[in-house]
Amino acid sequence: MYEMHFAVPMAGAVLNTINTRLDAANVATILKHSEAKVFFVDCQCVRLARDALKHLIDDNAPLPLVVIIDDIDAPTGIRLGELEYEQLIAKGDPMCPPTPLYDEWDPIALNYTSGTTSAPKGVVYSHRGAFLSTLSLLLQWEVGSEPVYLWSLPMFHCNGWTFTWGMAARGGANVCIRATTARDMYRAIADHRVTHMCCAPIVFNILLEATPAERRPLAAPVRVLTGGAPPPAPLLEKIERLGFRVTHAYGLTEATGPALVCEWREEWNRRPVEEQARLKARQGISVLTLADVDVKDLQTMQSIPRDGKSLGEIVLRGSSIMKGYYKNRDATDAAFRDGWFLTGDVGVIHPDGYVEIKDRSKDVIISGGENISSVEVETILYRHPMVLEAAVVAMPHPHWGETPCAFLKLKKDCEQGSIEEEDIISYCRNSMSRFMVPKKVVFMEELPKTSTGKIQKFQLRQMARGLKATDRDRTPQGGAAPQGKPQVVYVNGNNGHGQPEAQEQVLAMSRL
Amino acid sequence: MYEMHFAVPMAGAVLNTINTRLDAANVATILKHSEAKVFFVDCQCVRLARDALKHLIDDNAPLPLVVIIDDIDAPTGIRLGELEYEQLIAKGDPMCPPTPLYDEWDPIALNYTSGTTSAPKGVVYSHRGAFLSTLSLLLQWEVGSEPVYLWSLPMFHCNGWTFTWGMAARGGANVCIRATTARDMYRAIADHRVTHMCCAPIVFNILLEATPAERRPLAAPVRVLTGGAPPPAPLLEKIERLGFRVTHAYGLTEATGPALVCEWREEWNRRPVEEQARLKARQGISVLTLADVDVKDLQTMQSIPRDGKSLGEIVLRGSSIMKGYYKNRDATDAAFRDGWFLTGDVGVIHPDGYVEIKDRSKDVIISGGENISSVEVETILYRHPMVLEAAVVAMPHPHWGETPCAFLKLKKDCEQGSIEEEDIISYCRNSMSRFMVPKKVVFMEELPKTSTGKIQKFQLRQMARGLKATDRDRTPQGGAAPQGKPQVVYVNGNNGHGQPEAQEQVLAMSRL
Repeated sequence: MYEMHFAVPMAGAVLNTINTRLDAANVATILKHSEAKVFFVDCQCVRLARDALKHLIDDNAPLPLVVIIDDIDAPTGIRLGELEYEQLIAKGDPMCPPTPLYDEWDPIALNYTSGTTSAPKGVVYSHRGAFLSTLSLLLQWEVGSEPVYLWSLPMFHCNGWTFTWGMAARGGANVCIRATTARDMYRAIADHRVTHMCCAPIVFNILLEATPAERRPLAAPVRVLTGGAPPPAPLLEKIERLGFRVTHAYGLTEATGPALVCEWREEWNRRPVEEQARLKARQGISVLTLADVDVKDLQTMQSIPRDGKSLGEIVLRGSSIMKGYYKNRDATDAAFRDGWFLTGDVGVIHPDGYVEIKDRSKDVIISGGENISSVEVETILYRHPMVLEAAVVAMPHPHWGETPCAFLKLKKDCEQGSIEEEDIISYCRNSMSRFMVPKKVVFMEELPKTSTGKIQKFQLRQMARGLKATDRDRTPQGGAAPQGKPQVVYVNGNNGHGQPEAQEQVLAMSRL
Repeated sequence: MYEMHFAVPMAGAVLNTINTRLDAANVATILKHSEAKVFFVDCQCVRLARDALKHLIDDNAPLPLVVIIDDIDAPTGIRLGELEYEQLIAKGDPMCPPTPLYDEWDPIALNYTSGTTSAPKGVVYSHRGAFLSTLSLLLQWEVGSEPVYLWSLPMFHCNGWTFTWGMAARGGANVCIRATTARDMYRAIADHRVTHMCCAPIVFNILLEATPAERRPLAAPVRVLTGGAPPPAPLLEKIERLGFRVTHAYGLTEATGPALVCEWREEWNRRPVEEQARLKARQGISVLTLADVDVKDLQTMQSIPRDGKSLGEIVLRGSSIMKGYYKNRDATDAAFRDGWFLTGDVGVIHPDGYVEIKDRSKDVIISGGENISSVEVETILYRHPMVLEAAVVAMPHPHWGETPCAFLKLKKDCEQGSIEEEDIISYCRNSMSRFMVPKKVVFMEELPKTSTGKIQKFQLRQMARGLKATDRDRTPQGGAAPQGKPQVVYVNGNNGHGQPEAQEQVLAMSRL
């Protein structure tokens, strides 16, 4: 995937990295919507890819050319059709000049987000936007020359927050791991003298919960850029004590990853610890290549006062904001107003110019660093033959941060007790990506509603705060449990240790 | 001048900083050519400005509006017309919105270079080019958050190599000094805990030659970006021993300052010291926002092999290259070929991609960090009533690096001995900026020429290598000797100590 970040644009094509935690139906939807021409599949994702291709066949959709990327250090021989990546590369002409780019606004990447509505939306990045984001994130995070970067953040998340390109720009080394287990991360950090890593705050838990055998001391501080949710102060304190230096950023797929960074001011080091944590939990100031960030009253499009109290919606403007949603003019139009991108997040501006989120966009649940659209989960629940009404909200979760909690009203003719919580969870497991599955289902006689009949989600959120998850799934990475032993792959050719599992069979296209 | 870097673009105008080391005739030429509307004059430059305005009056050229910038800490009361900067600012509307920029290719700055021909050329920077250069220089030099920057490089040199804007982008503090004397620089570094500074290699000499009384120990390493000429290995070694960490860059006004930086690779720390100096003296690799650097055979426009031996001309391409020379289509056309900017410098590319200059553009003499056009000096010498032929070449100089050496053939009717070397030097002092004045003049019966009559400068250069300067001028900054005691001005309001000299009289416009 790292090589593709350069090869695909150089070939004049658009890169569409796919979240490997999605289920086959979702992957098929993306392949169809993006009209993908070539489908590169890592040898550990063959089952998911095969199932997705089956969906395409069922729908009579055109099939992309499939290229399997086998493990170069421990070849599996797995194929899905004729083509294998390294063999294909070997046939190429190394002197072939890259396709020239005539318009810097041309698309470079397409990243699907479940976002806030049920249909996945394809966020289009321009070469210009990706370039500017890359530069500004290197600057804001102060990435010096020759960093050693641990890929604890998947590259399919906004092109690795642009650090795919950024590491090349700084002459960095890329340390790739198959799974974000404590053992693999500590080993990679120690073996390769990692200097930088990005991750969701949940990775802090993984690092902190490591057993003594898994843990390795840090030879030097490791700089960590984190986003998704502000890391709670006690977590920050614990992880920094281990030698990690945390920077907090805020962004979204539509902004090419981080758009605000809570840039630390030296004078804050003299403040009390609790105040420091409060300052660090703020979303921060605009990255340098974003033209502008503001918090506005959407009714009037006026800026709210910089008093740290007045609420408004966080809006962004600049070249690193997406070009739009691919083939979705309505959603694109709805996302912008007067040239500003509307984040959907509600916040304040402090007198020092730092932005702080006060209320996240209501229908997004962030679980283990992945965005889950409550609307998407509800849509699938509504398809269940016994469900009359469904509302999904975030429920606090000690491990995942948040997890979806579903409130259901059953159809009249369904007898009470004829369906159990586990039945719904099991139905969801078969119908959606595993990380989206509600970990708690509550049946209600009536869902709380406004006088106009709108479900009052804030009441459900209050209820969810007092509930506990029923489904105790703690599989790392949701549905995409590591297939095979953890493996370290180092771009300079250092060998890993793992072997893809035998259960991944050699499958020819004809068997689909 | 620092404030002007923001105020002028925000007013929708173009900033034209003028080298204060130029003489009044040169300043007048620039004011005329640029069609300057407003002329901001520091209270220490009133005499130069007044003389320049006299030239404009003599030429019946339109006069710009003059605004004197008085010293805020120690007001002099000096005026040149009605307007004083701080009083003007006080009348402004602080809520006035900046003029919107509709085209990022619009000009932001105009910088005159004596360059390689006698007429000063106005190099035009776009907003886009300045923005990109600013970001890439911050990145390449690894300027972190909240730097403390010492202005040992004048802001009129390519807008301070874009660090005027760069310091704002990183939340830096600007430490401004009136003169680059050892005492002032050491004091500023110690008092303000300077982290970064830029300078010509000559400043290393000033720092090294400081008396024990002038010297102050460095509390922490100071990062120095230097350019103009590669610093010799022994000088590098000495200055680094004092705690300065030197990065070597190569650039030119037309490239918005540094275009190549000799980015250090960690593995080079394990090489022998002499090899390290050799590696560091190379001009380096392209800054990130330059699209491309290459070394080409100008006959064929083919890239030369990357063997560290084959010679070609260094050519540059990208957004941070100037838009062109203002009102000079011919010079602009001559400066570009196939979209490449021709630097005039001859170099090689090493197998690792690092560029090294082997032969500088022949007619430029770099003296104390200032470019001197040999053609410009020759043009003035030719105007002397007794000079028949003149050729000016670089002569090595222990303090200035290089200095101009003039070879003259006198007119036939001039008796041998009727004119002395000092007469020519004295004539030059009255006719050109002081830093351009030849420090050695040689009279010859015949200048060496080719069969077609072209003066063979390489022969003169060989001769010059064996000569010694006659004029022992070691005035800091060439002609612009510090007017009054050295003064430290700190942007946050810390007071300096100096007083502009009484000799700077209050002059009304009517007295011009």
